[in-house]
Formats: sequence, structure tokens, C-alpha cells
Amino acid sequence: MTFKDTSIDTAQAMDAEDPLQTFRERFIIDDPRTIYLDGNSLGRLPRQTVTDMQRVIEEEWGQTLIGSWNKHWIARPSQLAAQIAELVGAKAHEVLIADSTSINLFKLALAALRLQNNRTRIVSDVLNFPSDLYILQGIIDLLGRRHELILIPSEDGITISETAVEQAIDDSTALLTLSHVTFKSAFMYDMANITALAHRRGALVLWDLSHAVGAVPIDLNGCHADLAIGCNYKYLNGGPGSPAFLYVREDLQEQLISPLWGWFGAHRPFNFELDFQAHPGIERFNVGTPPMLSLSALTASLEIHRQAGMERIRQKSIRQTEYVLFLFHEWLAPLGFSLGCPENAQQRGSHISIRHEHAYPICQAMINSEPPDVRVIPDFRTPDNIRLGIAPLYTSYHDIHAAMDRIRTIAASQSYKNFSSDIQGIT
Amino acid sequence: MTFKDTSIDTAQAMDAEDPLQTFRERFIIDDPRTIYLDGNSLGRLPRQTVTDMQRVIEEEWGQTLIGSWNKHWIARPSQLAAQIAELVGAKAHEVLIADSTSINLFKLALAALRLQNNRTRIVSDVLNFPSDLYILQGIIDLLGRRHELILIPSEDGITISETAVEQAIDDSTALLTLSHVTFKSAFMYDMANITALAHRRGALVLWDLSHAVGAVPIDLNGCHADLAIGCNYKYLNGGPGSPAFLYVREDLQEQLISPLWGWFGAHRPFNFELDFQAHPGIERFNVGTPPMLSLSALTASLEIHRQAGMERIRQKSIRQTEYVLFLFHEWLAPLGFSLGCPENAQQRGSHISIRHEHAYPICQAMINSEPPDVRVIPDFRTPDNIRLGIAPLYTSYHDIHAAMDRIRTIAASQSYKNFSSDIQGIT
Repeated sequence: MTFKDTSIDTAQAMDAEDPLQTFRERFIIDDPRTIYLDGNSLGRLPRQTVTDMQRVIEEEWGQTLIGSWNKHWIARPSQLAAQIAELVGAKAHEVLIADSTSINLFKLALAALRLQNNRTRIVSDVLNFPSDLYILQGIIDLLGRRHELILIPSEDGITISETAVEQAIDDSTALLTLSHVTFKSAFMYDMANITALAHRRGALVLWDLSHAVGAVPIDLNGCHADLAIGCNYKYLNGGPGSPAFLYVREDLQEQLISPLWGWFGAHRPFNFELDFQAHPGIERFNVGTPPMLSLSALTASLEIHRQAGMERIRQKSIRQTEYVLFLFHEWLAPLGFSLGCPENAQQRGSHISIRHEHAYPICQAMINSEPPDVRVIPDFRTPDNIRLGIAPLYTSYHDIHAAMDRIRTIAASQSYKNFSSDIQGIT
Repeated sequence: MTFKDTSIDTAQAMDAEDPLQTFRERFIIDDPRTIYLDGNSLGRLPRQTVTDMQRVIEEEWGQTLIGSWNKHWIARPSQLAAQIAELVGAKAHEVLIADSTSINLFKLALAALRLQNNRTRIVSDVLNFPSDLYILQGIIDLLGRRHELILIPSEDGITISETAVEQAIDDSTALLTLSHVTFKSAFMYDMANITALAHRRGALVLWDLSHAVGAVPIDLNGCHADLAIGCNYKYLNGGPGSPAFLYVREDLQEQLISPLWGWFGAHRPFNFELDFQAHPGIERFNVGTPPMLSLSALTASLEIHRQAGMERIRQKSIRQTEYVLFLFHEWLAPLGFSLGCPENAQQRGSHISIRHEHAYPICQAMINSEPPDVRVIPDFRTPDNIRLGIAPLYTSYHDIHAAMDRIRTIAASQSYKNFSSDIQGIT
């Protein structure tokens, strides 16, 4: 992919031709001086969500009160799950919205290990989100340390080769669990190839879609994926701590036993029977009462995704991340930055990682810029990564141009030296 | 406790003398024809919560975006937990807000069983919320069916005697887990006595405070309670599916291993280390990113509780539930109703259960009344219970009078015969 030049005019011309440009207006963006490149960590607030939440709070809770369970709430999680199913290439009854990503991983990984009772190896990789590994370590501890967790190495710290995956999976492998798009380097696995490779050895595969859903097209059914989990507050703009989702392929649902037997996973919860009987189908992976306010905040964004279409989102994401790379090579590589993500778009999600030995103070300088400079919000990932998240629904080419120009200025002027290298708070 | 007569004037006189009467104005109550007696299932919406949530959504999420984690959100769960700690007689660092009641029960019950590794008996009772039993059954299944779950019987279906508890606990008992106030009959255990009794046999005790917190004063530390969980959307008005809380006594925290090793329970989550190290203290029972919208909705109500004070709330609750019983005996007992809760206020939480062979259609008639009659919102609990929840912060004596009068009219006129006995939807 080629770009005419590094001028602002070229960026603006790309915005003018962008078929998704009107979607930016669907989000609250009221500070033109701030460029938000962290939609991969916490997505922006859709305008419609403000109105939706007023209605949920003032009418559904405030006025209809308990009556809203029958009238609105009991059906909402599955209505929203059906929309997520479309985004990930699954059937509506294969997706459930509930709890957090970690808790959903716990339910599915533990259920998979119990199903694969005669196998003791769990395989993941060193690029996976550490919290996923923590959940696996907790399960191993809980099951009496009968299992071993093998982490596939990365040669370059950015990608994992299919050969390395193949070497890690043997006939004792119960479960392979990977992030489809890795959180730091944005490396994206070929889901179909990897799933097939694991299935040939009899392993189940659990995909963490947190950094992929809403950013890249996903075809769980087409890839014969077994299990998946994902986060709704990144590209899906569900708001801070939005409840997560899980996917279980139709034919596996009755074979898997969730360790968490809650009343929302019971067959007839309002019969209040003393003995648990699991709900048929995907609902059996539900536990307690869903956090309805947080859950309802997903509604508008899922509709926006449906209207925009994942193919168009992905096309724009590729063009925009390529544009970041173009400016990176023109402007930043000469200033001591290196690339922390794949060059090849087919191996990359929708964020760009750049590395610099002073990454943390550079991030601080970006965030704390004073007028007339623009503020740029990335996030820092230890030890030296700056993540630049591209959310095609609201990121403009102009945003990218201004942000990269700002990073160039900070690095060239060394103004980051005004900021401490001591990491403070959440990054 | 005596009441002058059954007249509306007497009800109004009690409202006029009520020291908590102004607290009713702190809640959205915009339909004077509806009497809400279901605050024990879903508490009303505080006025301040509407404003709070606008700020959280439009400013914290919409404007400050990811910066709100450091500026607002990371500290909020523990700020709110400290207020819940005051309501339940615990230290601030003994309470955590996270996940659902069921998931918190799973964490603590499983951790307790692992600590009490040489004991195989789990004791609960037949009046406990069935979902609590489901979680225990799931744990037993997960741990290879080494444990047995003993349910203490109830002679009258309403109460459980201390003798029966004592008989169920033996030297093999790992855990006793009970609802402090039972969901259907409102029976309340003497927490201090029961805890002491279990401790004498070496059992740990886990209290489910869902139907007690915000309704009765609780002194976990004073009772030497080990573990507790509770729900925030009932008397605490946190909104539908509000995240729940858990309590672990200070000296037990380091001894217990949560089965769910999530990044919010890790010592330094933003170091992204590959190996889990548990956070010191109560935070180790945290898992994933908290659902911040749902969680923030607790703020106003906890402040209202602090201002009202649990002692005054309890005094009014006792007087109001006694008033319900007074009208029950005067008006409803002669019409075929019987009492489904203890007569003695010391053994009772803040709801009243009444029973009738046509309870379900009577509930439907109450809810679906047309003007000029008042609508009364109770909830039905199978097979024949009508629960009348008293929320002293907003329930008035006038409400109680009008509701009981309406039930009397429905029963006397047999107008409930216009409604089907077939149970529909959530009750």
C-alpha cells in the first residue's frame, strides 16, 4: 500500500474519500485537541449510548422497577449476544454475554480440561495476555497440579510461527489457548490453520478474541473453533468493565460442565428447586444476575458495528495502520524508534506498537501536551512499547497524521526529558 | 408493639412522626398510584444516582476516557467497599466489591474447603437461596464428589432451630454456609450464636447477607464471622445486577487461595509478568476489570444509608413489619391467608411473607390493578408465598396501609379469579 506523501493534505484527502467517515459523528468527541489512540483499551462513548442509558436508568429501573426483568432485561443479554455472534461468525445460540473475560476463560478452560481428562498439557504462548495465563495457573493449582502449562516461545518478541505452535502440541495436549490478536505486538494468528493443527492432535482450542473482536473479521464457525472468549469494552465500546462474552460451539455445549452452577445457568431458576439442573445450551455457562446497567451500554455500539460492517472496518483498519507505518518509517525510525508489531497487515490486528528506550516518558509527554500542541492518548506497555490503537469507526487519517507528527516533535526535541521514567498508576 | 387502629389516619400519623420520613424524597417515586413492596428484590433508584450516572457516562467515560482509570475508577471499588464494611461491621480492608454473589460464594466456599482439606461435610439449610446450593453442588462436583452437602431441615418451613444446626455440624464439617436472613420466610439467624457453635466444632462459617445488608444491623467482626458474601441490588439500591461484595476476616485472607487468579487480583497487574502473584489482602479475591457503570450506581445509596444509620433503619423496619402483621391479623388472616414468616421481630428480616392457596393470581391482581385502585408490587415465591418487602428508606406507613387494604379487597372480592394460575416469566 502506497501513500502520496507525508503532508496533511494527503491525510485530509483520505478522510474525504473514507466510506466510513460519517460514523465518527456517532461518537462523543468534544475535545478537538485530544487524539485518542486507545480505543483498543477503552472504546469511545457512542452518542446513542447516552440516551440509551438515561432510558435504562430513569425508565427501566426508576419507573418500571422489578417489572423490567420480564419487560426488558431477561431477553437483553441474548439479543446482544446474537449481535456479537454475527461479528465473530457464530450462531446466536453459541454466544453468551456474562461476567468478565477472565471468569469466562476460567469456566471454559476448566470445562475443557475436565472433558480432556486423560490429557495433561495446556499450551499457550509468551505473547498472550498475562491474565489469561494467571487463570490457567489458578486452574492447574486447583486441579492438584496434574497439568503443565507450556508457553510457545517467540523468536522476535513480536510473532509466533506456526512451526513453533506445532512443536508445542503433542498427544497429551488437552487445550491450546491463544489470543487471536496479541495485546502488545498486535500479532494475529491464522485461526483456521492453528485450529486445524491442534485438532489433528486431538486438542481443543480456546481463542481469546479481546483484541480482535470489532477490529478484524472473525469466522469461528468457518474455522471450526471450539471455544472463545472476548472483551466488549475495547473495539466494541461497551464502556469500562463491560461484561464479556463467551462462545461454545453448538455440539460441545452439552459435553462441557461449567464449574460455576449459578441460578442464571439453571434450567428453571424461578422454580427455586434445591437441586441444580443445567440449562440446555449456551445458557448453562451463565452464573448470577447480569450487571444490567453495564450490559445495556453495549446496545448502541453493536448496532453501529452492524451498520458499518466488519469488512469495511477491516479495510479501513488496514489502510490506517499501513498509514501509521508509512509515517513511522518516514518520521520515527530515524529518531530511534523500532517497530513492535508485524509489518505484514495479514498478521496484524488494529493497533500498532512502536518501541523506544524512553517509551514511558514519551507517552507522558504525549498525554500531557499543552496547547497549541495536540494531546495524544496511547498506552504504554512495559518495558518499552507505545501502543497506538486504530479504531476505524472514529479514528481519522487526520488524527493519525497529527499524532505521528506530535510523537516526532517530542522525540526530536527530547521534550520527554521533562517527564519522569518512574511508572505511576495504571498505564 | 401495639397500633391504635386500622384507620388511614393512624398510618398517616406514624408517617408524620417518622424520623426517616425525608429519606423517601431521595428516591425517584413518580407514580403515586404504585406501591412498591419489592425493594428486597430490586431497590428503588436514588435521585442522586441519576446525576451520578450522567457524570460517570458523559464525563468519566465520554470525556476523560482511559484517563478515568487513574483519576476515578481504580479507587472506586475500595471506596464503596469501605462504606459497605461500615454497614456489616467489618474493617474496610476486609470487604471487596466484585462479580456476582454466586461467583463470590464460589471463590470463598472453594477456598474454605481447600483450607479445611481433611474435612468433607458442607452444611447449609433447606431455606437457603437455592442458587447458593447450586454453587455448592458445582464445587462438590468439581472436587470429585469427595464432599457431602447436608441441608438442615426446617420443622415449620419458616425457621431453623439452633438445635438443628448443632446436630448437623460434626467434626468432619468443613463449612457452614447460611443466609443470615432467608429469602422466602425472612427468618433471621442469630449470627453470633451460630458462628460460635460452628467454631466449637472447627467449621468455618460463610454468611450470605443478600437479604440482610441494608435491612438489619450486622456485626461480622463482633460475631467473629469468617466469611460473607452479599448482594447490592436489594436493600442497597445498586441497580439491576449491581456487582456483589465479599468479606474475608483479616487473619484468614492470607490463608485462603481464590480459585480465580485474575489480573485485578494480582500483586502488580500492570507489570504484565507471566507468573501470577496474589495481591496481599482482600484484593486477591478480585478477578477481572470491574463493571464500572454498574458499580458506580452504588455510590449515592451507600451515602444515604450512612446518613440514615442502620440502627434507625432497623427500628423503622421493625415498626413497619409489625404494622404489616397487625393489619394481616386484622384483615387477611380471616380471608384464608397464613403467615410465612416469624412473628417475632428478633427472628425476622425486613420482609413479610404471607401465604395463600391462590397466591399467584392474587399477586397478578395486585400488580395489574386499574385506577382508581392502587397497584401493589410484591413478589411471588413458589408455591404459595407473597413477599412484601419493607424498605424503610422509602416505604411509608401509608404505603403499607393502602397495600394491605388492596390485598384484602382482592381476596374478599375474589377478583384474583380473573387471573390465570399459570406462572409466566420471572416472578
